[in-house]
Amino acid sequence: VVISDIKTPVLLLDEAKCRRNIQVMAEKAGKYNLHFRPHFKTHQSAIIAEWFREEGTTAITVSSVRMAKYFANHGWNDITIAFPVNLREMEGINQLASEINLNLLLGSEDITDHLTDQLKTETSVFIEIDTGARRSGIQHNDIKIIECIIDAIRKSPLLNLSGFLTHAGHTYHASNKNDVLQIHQESLLQMHKLKTYFATEKPMISIGDTPSCTISDDFDGADEIRPGNFVFYDLMQARIGSCRHEQIAVALACPVVAKYPGRSEIIIYGGAVHFSKDSMPLNGEKNCYGRIAFLNGEGWNILPDNNMVIALSQEHGVVKMQERFMKQIAVGDLLAVLPVHSCLTAHQMGSYLTLDKRVIHMMDSKPGV
Amino acid sequence: VVISDIKTPVLLLDEAKCRRNIQVMAEKAGKYNLHFRPHFKTHQSAIIAEWFREEGTTAITVSSVRMAKYFANHGWNDITIAFPVNLREMEGINQLASEINLNLLLGSEDITDHLTDQLKTETSVFIEIDTGARRSGIQHNDIKIIECIIDAIRKSPLLNLSGFLTHAGHTYHASNKNDVLQIHQESLLQMHKLKTYFATEKPMISIGDTPSCTISDDFDGADEIRPGNFVFYDLMQARIGSCRHEQIAVALACPVVAKYPGRSEIIIYGGAVHFSKDSMPLNGEKNCYGRIAFLNGEGWNILPDNNMVIALSQEHGVVKMQERFMKQIAVGDLLAVLPVHSCLTAHQMGSYLTLDKRVIHMMDSKPGV
Repeated sequence: VVISDIKTPVLLLDEAKCRRNIQVMAEKAGKYNLHFRPHFKTHQSAIIAEWFREEGTTAITVSSVRMAKYFANHGWNDITIAFPVNLREMEGINQLASEINLNLLLGSEDITDHLTDQLKTETSVFIEIDTGARRSGIQHNDIKIIECIIDAIRKSPLLNLSGFLTHAGHTYHASNKNDVLQIHQESLLQMHKLKTYFATEKPMISIGDTPSCTISDDFDGADEIRPGNFVFYDLMQARIGSCRHEQIAVALACPVVAKYPGRSEIIIYGGAVHFSKDSMPLNGEKNCYGRIAFLNGEGWNILPDNNMVIALSQEHGVVKMQERFMKQIAVGDLLAVLPVHSCLTAHQMGSYLTLDKRVIHMMDSKPGV
Repeated sequence: VVISDIKTPVLLLDEAKCRRNIQVMAEKAGKYNLHFRPHFKTHQSAIIAEWFREEGTTAITVSSVRMAKYFANHGWNDITIAFPVNLREMEGINQLASEINLNLLLGSEDITDHLTDQLKTETSVFIEIDTGARRSGIQHNDIKIIECIIDAIRKSPLLNLSGFLTHAGHTYHASNKNDVLQIHQESLLQMHKLKTYFATEKPMISIGDTPSCTISDDFDGADEIRPGNFVFYDLMQARIGSCRHEQIAVALACPVVAKYPGRSEIIIYGGAVHFSKDSMPLNGEKNCYGRIAFLNGEGWNILPDNNMVIALSQEHGVVKMQERFMKQIAVGDLLAVLPVHSCLTAHQMGSYLTLDKRVIHMMDSKPGV
């Protein structure tokens, strides 16, 4: 498939940028003596997974049992499902646990007994700690509950405690590097305290959001990192300060379907079903859904930040564009759009087209019955 | 598939409510002597399409060439693609135009010549009018441009003018019925003026957003309506006043994976990849992503409006829940969640499970290369 022949929105992947992002993070993990267990929910692709393998990656993180099965089928045998154990999927979990080194998450007190009852194979577990993201996990200072869970793990013949795991996802709401560093330091300190308090358990400390892993140079007390988004990065990461725009490895190629010079707007074929609907404030606009770039045969050139997608409906994208750029575009042309949140955009699209014209498929990620 | 056996998030469909929604709208169109051309982008399913056929529907609206092909393959031979003509898909458009009665949209001045050059079969076209939604379409008062387009259509041997079409999508931002009625009246008046001004063309006037079509009883000057969302409705429509909560025909069944009574929150397996990310303000929360209901064997009972999804990440949903309801729920149970925007949630899910245990598939809507 040649880019110029694209008929409908297609997610372009710059393999060189992507491989470089992987290499830099893998080297950083090595430099700080951290076990590297990247999250594969961003790319969801066995082909891109091989690019990680080439950099020495052997252990991975996923966000669902289905994703664990997909990567297990592609030769990955050390997988952490970084999502609270879903008791309704015990059949799949037991199957996986019998085949690979599977790590599960205990994120609340009540799950441990159920798991002990329903598990059929020896399995490693992390206790998930909430260091402020307020998603899943035990409050970092809820020592009593953590002790209860550890006690239950000790009593269970099948559960082995790997350690404590956190996702400081609140770094995604940061608007600069200092905020990220502060959240990261607090989170790290809380995890360090747990490591010390429960020293007899020799717990591994697993952390890992892309902003912290990219920006920080202090991982004191951490044993493992699990970033995911860095494989592509996106506008949100650039805004936070995790990457430069030049490092963003994916862009959605969208046909121009209408031009309104009078209102300085263009309509592209590219909507919520392609981008998903994450947005961020940019240059006076409350909701930017993507920044515009021109395709140049070897990739894309990003336009100034007052050229952006300002509204999305199911299939339409409304693009605000400066006159000097609008003049260069005709109905039927393609624009590239850098996504606000590459994980969700990739999930929506289901496949990639590399700049050298190869189609890369993702796992079949449509949920359904 | 039995609901109680669900392992991962599944979109439940109450067929009786859905059929009733279809029936009421079809009857309303009949009562006002309006041609009924419902938008099928909400359900994207050949099975649900048949429920429309049983109510006498023969003409439909879709939002992409791919969707038009899907429904044409399922016996629908009068289809309007309510999206600006995408010149990159002329091959598919020509194919469809040779097989069925296809209506295309001219949404900007520059498209007409291109279409004339590339079209191979006689085809009907609507001129898309912007009555304030600021998405695609010619400004309703831009008479000169409209005249130019009509002139080009007259000169083209293959283009036949059907009339003027608008989507007053700004009703979706209304917060009550009066706002909807005001937007609808303005939009209708603008279309009526065009009908009068271009009377010699005998233009059909096609309108049709769900809020206007549901709430209004004045369609003076309109010939056709194209609502779509009403087939399921959702929380956004209930908020606007288009429906009662009892009319909402879909709910996402989500496993409970963690319980945090201390913070009055539950974590469900159900995230952005299942719901998409549309939100609305509700009961003091800036972003509500869904309201919680209990499954009751025959459907669901909605809980008070302070029980809702307040945050979504890729797979996690964070649910705020009152203590008295939280007590009734254990890890491993299922909750039902009424979606904020049913079109996007259905698109994400790809299939439905009816309350009487039938699986209904949608078209394969994953974009991709």
